[in-house]
Amino acid sequence: MTQPAAPSARTRVRRAANRASYEDETLKAIIDAAYVCHVAFADEEGAHCIPTACWRSGEHLYIHGSNGSRMLKALLAQDACVTITHLDGLVMARSAFNHSMNYRSAMIYGRFELVDGQGKHEALATFMEHLAPGRQQQSRPGNEKEYAATTVLRVTLDEAVCKVRTGGPKDDQEDMGLQVWAGVLPLVQQRATPVRDPACSAPEPDYVVGWSLD
Amino acid sequence: MTQPAAPSARTRVRRAANRASYEDETLKAIIDAAYVCHVAFADEEGAHCIPTACWRSGEHLYIHGSNGSRMLKALLAQDACVTITHLDGLVMARSAFNHSMNYRSAMIYGRFELVDGQGKHEALATFMEHLAPGRQQQSRPGNEKEYAATTVLRVTLDEAVCKVRTGGPKDDQEDMGLQVWAGVLPLVQQRATPVRDPACSAPEPDYVVGWSLD
Repeated sequence: MTQPAAPSARTRVRRAANRASYEDETLKAIIDAAYVCHVAFADEEGAHCIPTACWRSGEHLYIHGSNGSRMLKALLAQDACVTITHLDGLVMARSAFNHSMNYRSAMIYGRFELVDGQGKHEALATFMEHLAPGRQQQSRPGNEKEYAATTVLRVTLDEAVCKVRTGGPKDDQEDMGLQVWAGVLPLVQQRATPVRDPACSAPEPDYVVGWSLD
Repeated sequence: MTQPAAPSARTRVRRAANRASYEDETLKAIIDAAYVCHVAFADEEGAHCIPTACWRSGEHLYIHGSNGSRMLKALLAQDACVTITHLDGLVMARSAFNHSMNYRSAMIYGRFELVDGQGKHEALATFMEHLAPGRQQQSRPGNEKEYAATTVLRVTLDEAVCKVRTGGPKDDQEDMGLQVWAGVLPLVQQRATPVRDPACSAPEPDYVVGWSLD
């Protein structure tokens, strides 16, 4: 999928359609900047919205969890909607009505499929690489029991849409002369100083040294 | 609701139940720290997960949008699940399997109700106060047409649950001697330097001056 995907009935944006993007590059950048997604699905108790760790490999978004997870079982039996949102700022307009937010969001629709065997091992290694590059070779790898207790699912990126807002306020022309501060109050996900486990005496690997220097 | 709420069938946590909280104070702190929530609902096309701005007033969570929004219409006709997640860090354990994340999340189940008339005006003023304290008195207030074009909904906090993880890795005893760095790589939502609209010459109000000093 290197060309923009055509919108489906579920991914055609109606509201603020000028903010919609079906570009593969935009979608992957939004997923790769995330550690967590929200997954919506429904059961006899109604709709649920569950936050869970996520990562991307190629043309799929992956999630994982315990074998006993009700969500993971439910996701194999129905389509889900996976949403990732990065909030980038509060947009202060001259009028109350034109206030907005800057954000990058992605919605992915589809049926999750089970990732098992060698694919599961590879997927979890990719997840670790996403969290901390190089750590997979340092931490004690999963044993058979641990792998057996873990379910990995993935969904293709085929039916997806992004919505992005950037830039300053869009005020009405007749409000432009008002003497009220207008602009953007930015928000960023920042890395803070690593906290070593008190019982740990091992040296800091590169991803810890560099964590809060970015 | 000053006492912990009893869990419902939908809010009883099964996975990592030691991280569950039904405390009113915890719930409100998680909501008040958020600008955005994810709302899950279902229609003939399946489940949807939509990010939207949110705020709290008293015992309700509020959202708003255009009158034409399909989501807002759908939410009046079915129960929804609203989820807020703050990611606080990546937890690096000595074994791959025990890696985790620190987070604060809240899930609220219920049926949204329409907020109209004076209540709508008050709710939108509270929203502005949440975004930028004092700004409601500075920006040009909504006119009749703008209020008429805006729908405000709210849901009670009666059926809600929080899940919180804090602290360092919980490793298996037999892994404690491994020479691998263990600890937390913290993440925080940080305020960055305000960006003034080039066409604006008004002085900076307190919430702009103080935005990135916190």
